[in-house]
Amino acid sequence: MDEFSLIQQYFTDGQSRTSENGVVLGIGDDAAIIKSAQGEELLFTTDTLIKGVHFPEQTAPEAIGHKALAVNLSDIAAMAGQARWFTLALSLPEADSAWLKAFSAGLFSLAKKFGVSLVGGDTTRGPLSITLSVIGTIPEKMAIRRSTASPGDAIFITGLPGMAALGLAAIKDEFSLSDIDQSNCLDKLNYPQPRMQEGHFLRNYASSMIDISDGLTADLGHIVQASGCLAVIDSVSLKNILPAVSGLSDERVIEAALYGGDDYELLFTVPASEVLKLERSWPPLFAPLTQIGEITEGEGVLLRDSNDELLEIAEHGYNHFNA
Amino acid sequence: MDEFSLIQQYFTDGQSRTSENGVVLGIGDDAAIIKSAQGEELLFTTDTLIKGVHFPEQTAPEAIGHKALAVNLSDIAAMAGQARWFTLALSLPEADSAWLKAFSAGLFSLAKKFGVSLVGGDTTRGPLSITLSVIGTIPEKMAIRRSTASPGDAIFITGLPGMAALGLAAIKDEFSLSDIDQSNCLDKLNYPQPRMQEGHFLRNYASSMIDISDGLTADLGHIVQASGCLAVIDSVSLKNILPAVSGLSDERVIEAALYGGDDYELLFTVPASEVLKLERSWPPLFAPLTQIGEITEGEGVLLRDSNDELLEIAEHGYNHFNA
Repeated sequence: MDEFSLIQQYFTDGQSRTSENGVVLGIGDDAAIIKSAQGEELLFTTDTLIKGVHFPEQTAPEAIGHKALAVNLSDIAAMAGQARWFTLALSLPEADSAWLKAFSAGLFSLAKKFGVSLVGGDTTRGPLSITLSVIGTIPEKMAIRRSTASPGDAIFITGLPGMAALGLAAIKDEFSLSDIDQSNCLDKLNYPQPRMQEGHFLRNYASSMIDISDGLTADLGHIVQASGCLAVIDSVSLKNILPAVSGLSDERVIEAALYGGDDYELLFTVPASEVLKLERSWPPLFAPLTQIGEITEGEGVLLRDSNDELLEIAEHGYNHFNA
Repeated sequence: MDEFSLIQQYFTDGQSRTSENGVVLGIGDDAAIIKSAQGEELLFTTDTLIKGVHFPEQTAPEAIGHKALAVNLSDIAAMAGQARWFTLALSLPEADSAWLKAFSAGLFSLAKKFGVSLVGGDTTRGPLSITLSVIGTIPEKMAIRRSTASPGDAIFITGLPGMAALGLAAIKDEFSLSDIDQSNCLDKLNYPQPRMQEGHFLRNYASSMIDISDGLTADLGHIVQASGCLAVIDSVSLKNILPAVSGLSDERVIEAALYGGDDYELLFTVPASEVLKLERSWPPLFAPLTQIGEITEGEGVLLRDSNDELLEIAEHGYNHFNA
């Protein structure tokens, strides 16, 4: 058995029991055999993480393992689905057992939390690169797309956007944060929590949904472009939920919230008639829920400032804040 | 739209119409939505191709696109399944439009041939690396595993093993081949043909099956290890189907057949009672079918030479031929 076969054995041993999850045949044959239930549709997504592009060089291997799965699970959450099975294609410069132990600990910890089973993979020698493919399931016609927002819908997010971007800026020495702020922001950057339960809950409420990976403004842009309408972000609502970060201006924090990526929060629209019901029924243990604007006729994304003036904002730049 | 968005657009445009293939929602959302039929199981596999490891540096981008899909389809064929949907994770050092045009031409040409639909992907900047994940379908309990061979079964292969390895050795200048031999061997190396129809046909015959990627001996080793039995390869049967390659000894050719990888032919076992029926019903347009040995009690892989003597052979070395 060569060293790379040993790696595969390692991942085989590391996974949890999968027989209760529709896994007919797991790792070890040419392909896995899995079975969904009658009346279910499948959700299929893939995402690659590359060192220096998707995570800083110094990222701990445990965080890399966590994040590689988290960003893929987040895509399933954004469709309101249940994540079920995944494959791992891992390219590594060398078989470093300490690295692999930590990487797989991060990966399997998250996999167990959400009951998703590793069913196959491929390990090769090469520059560090991690590609996961995930299959989720959802009852027929229940998936929430990004193309189905309508004028009149309210815009919501889960959690606090922008913290991952502040964490990244801090480790790039663009500014320094207090220890507690730095720790919180790096935790968001390195250990994003896919909003699986929240996404599932939103099956009955959201008219459209996406996860925030490119940044709030850019991803809201994806919703309105696909849906053929205009989004107005209310800067006061957004400011209200942003944490006070010691040493940073409010404007720097809201800039991170609008343009920072890597949050993996859910961004979604809800018909006006459902807003009150959603807010009342949102479980207290879920990530915080905030209405940050509304959908109207038109196209693009605008920001309503504290004087009720509408400002044009581009996907990746905002003149007022960047000035 | 940045250059990498343009690439994604390129792949979106390049795919064939997918609405007839169970694709509810294709590229462009957080995940694709697909639907299998009632009573079907899913086959899920992933494989990575890295330059210099899985294809020589000078390989044409069209061949890389073909091969990236072919090796994954071959895994579905080896389970006797029908390939249906795939995602593409492509890491590229730069957005080279000529390269991408040729790569996607090779990819989509094969995808169209077998009716498999690209439903998602991820394009990133990085060292050249291609990971495809494929989902296939098969009626419940019809998938052919590698662990179900039994003593008394005959061992068969499709096609001519070893040619890809000879092609690789030739471009490494280990020897020179005639133009026609070189062309044939490089065609096998660069454009392997996944045996989809053959695999499907074998649902009703094969007791176990695998595709030859590591080499005939190594992959037969995987079958007998998983099945708990012994395989005997008949060297005379094997020699009979190998092409006369000008300038190479018979022994060099049979060595390539036994140990060379990258053939992507099907290697399978058939119960003795079914052999005659299989041989009679094998469609003439399929890849050639050859019985090359049989399964008995024991463990490992042996070679029966022309004097009826049994020789021990290891997975990756064979003393007699390597001497």
